[in-house]
Formats: sequence, structure tokens, C-alpha cells
Amino acid sequence: MDLKDYILDVQDFPIKGVTFKDITPLLNNVNAFKYAVDQMAEYVKQKKANVVVAPEARGFLFASAVAYVAGVRFALIRKPGKLPREVIDVEYELEYGKNHIQIHKEDLKESDNVVIIDDVLATGGTIHAIIKLIEQCKAKINGIVFLADISFLHDKDLFSEFDINCLIKY
Amino acid sequence: MDLKDYILDVQDFPIKGVTFKDITPLLNNVNAFKYAVDQMAEYVKQKKANVVVAPEARGFLFASAVAYVAGVRFALIRKPGKLPREVIDVEYELEYGKNHIQIHKEDLKESDNVVIIDDVLATGGTIHAIIKLIEQCKAKINGIVFLADISFLHDKDLFSEFDINCLIKY
Repeated sequence: MDLKDYILDVQDFPIKGVTFKDITPLLNNVNAFKYAVDQMAEYVKQKKANVVVAPEARGFLFASAVAYVAGVRFALIRKPGKLPREVIDVEYELEYGKNHIQIHKEDLKESDNVVIIDDVLATGGTIHAIIKLIEQCKAKINGIVFLADISFLHDKDLFSEFDINCLIKY
Repeated sequence: MDLKDYILDVQDFPIKGVTFKDITPLLNNVNAFKYAVDQMAEYVKQKKANVVVAPEARGFLFASAVAYVAGVRFALIRKPGKLPREVIDVEYELEYGKNHIQIHKEDLKESDNVVIIDDVLATGGTIHAIIKLIEQCKAKINGIVFLADISFLHDKDLFSEFDINCLIKY
């Protein structure tokens, strides 16, 4: 199965000149979604992770099913104001302005082995912040898995200290 | 298993006087999450649905795994500016101001049998808007499943024309 058949290029979204990778057709196809989730879950097992971590909202689309299939815990990364208990917070730079992401302090332990899950690797800004967040929790990052890597948007050796698995490469 | 053991009451969140139901401990427990997902997936099968529909972001936390387990399609409901192709849009009233939710027009067909999935039924405002959205797509709503029903926040006969299943009742 070629998962690229289930990703649509949408021109000029969200702004003119940008081509957006729309992953929703993959979710709307039972076999393609199962194929992607099974591959991610297999990776989580290979990496001997006991918890998956994913950012809202599109990371949740895969991490929920992967956590179920791999039989591991699922810890959420959210924007500020969403997690009600004590959080660890990381600020990161956007093209214009700054952003924050948070995780519940109790959700990761030092003994945890983590795989990070997200849908698309573009410039890598969000993943860089997620890595900092997990490192502040002192948990171990065993790997990172993406549905799709848009490789021309980032350096070839981005995150070279981590094991990265992308189901689709552009 | 009593799923209530995995839901935390957090006082004064997001504002003073409100008690927030924090579902993240359930996601962070492999057995509790599997138990909840299996019950939801069983309901989807009983209702002979071929697609689950869920709103961002917390609805995604369950719908992804449920879609996988039940072997059905997964159609997203998102806030404006997130879905890149042609959408159907519904406006609904909040306590202060208005909100919009959207679904890709191509994601539901008239022949579809839908189960709506979300985490918590509170006042029902979002679900009411989701029902309108699915009705505009002319798909059939076979049922609605929530992790938790906070029953004192809404009328007893809310959505009485639909089959509603709540795994936890408060």
C-alpha cells in the first residue's frame, strides 16, 4: 500500500504560496488508517517504549490508536490553558511570535521510555520543543515517528541524535 | 473496572467555581484506556455504524482507537481554519459569543451511518452543533457515545431522539 495515495496536496493553505498536506483522506479510509497505525505501533514495540507522547490536535489522531495497539500509556502535549494540573512548560519561537506547549508533570517518570508521535515533520519547530519538554521530565526518548516527512523543509541532519521513522517521505 | 477511578476532579479550572473532569489519568493507564475504547468500539459495532465522527481535540483521543478497533472510517470535526478543503460549517452560541465547527464536505455521504464520539457530555452545546453538521451532510446518526456524562449540567431528556451511551455517569 502506498500511503501517499491518501494524502492530498492542497494549494495556498493556510496562506497563499503554501502547499498543505491534508491527511484526512487517510483517516477516512479504513485500510490505509489501519496500515499506518500498525506500522507506528510496530515501531513503538521495536523501540521498547512504554509510553507514547503526542501534541494536539493532529498527533492525537494517530497516538490514540497506536497506544491501544502497542499496549502503552498515552501522555498528551497541549497548548496552554488545557491541562488542569501542574504542568511542565516549554516556550518556542514561531516565524512571528512565540508559542508554548505543556505536559502534565505527573504524566512522565524518569524511568519512562518514550516514542513521540506526530503527523507531519515540516520545519521541526514543534518537535524540537517536545523534545525539550520530555527532557525536562527526565524521561528517555527512544524514538520519534511521523506519518510524513516533508524533507525539503528541514536540514537533512535534523535531530540526528534521535532515531526517526517516517512512514512517507516527500 | 470502575472508570471513575481514572477521572480526576480539578477544582476552579478553567475558572473559579468550576470543577473540571480531567480524563488524562485514564489515557495514562493502559488497562483503563483499553477498557473504555473496547466499550465504545462495541457500541459502534452494535449500532452498525460505518464511520465515527469526533470533534477536536479531546474527541480525537478516543475516536482514533475506536475507529481502528471497530474497523470504521474516522471523520474529523474541527474549528475554522483547520480543514483545507470545502467544508460544511455550523455556527453555535456560547455563553459569551459564538463558535463555529466544520467538517470536510467529502467526508460523509448520505449512505453513511454515524456514531458521534466525545469525551464529556456537559451542557450539550457542542454535540447539538455536531448533530446539525451531520444532518446537513444528510448522513444518518445511529448513536452518540461519551466517556462521561455530567448529568446535572443538562436536561434529562436532552437529545431524546438519539440513542446515547455514556460509559460513566455523574
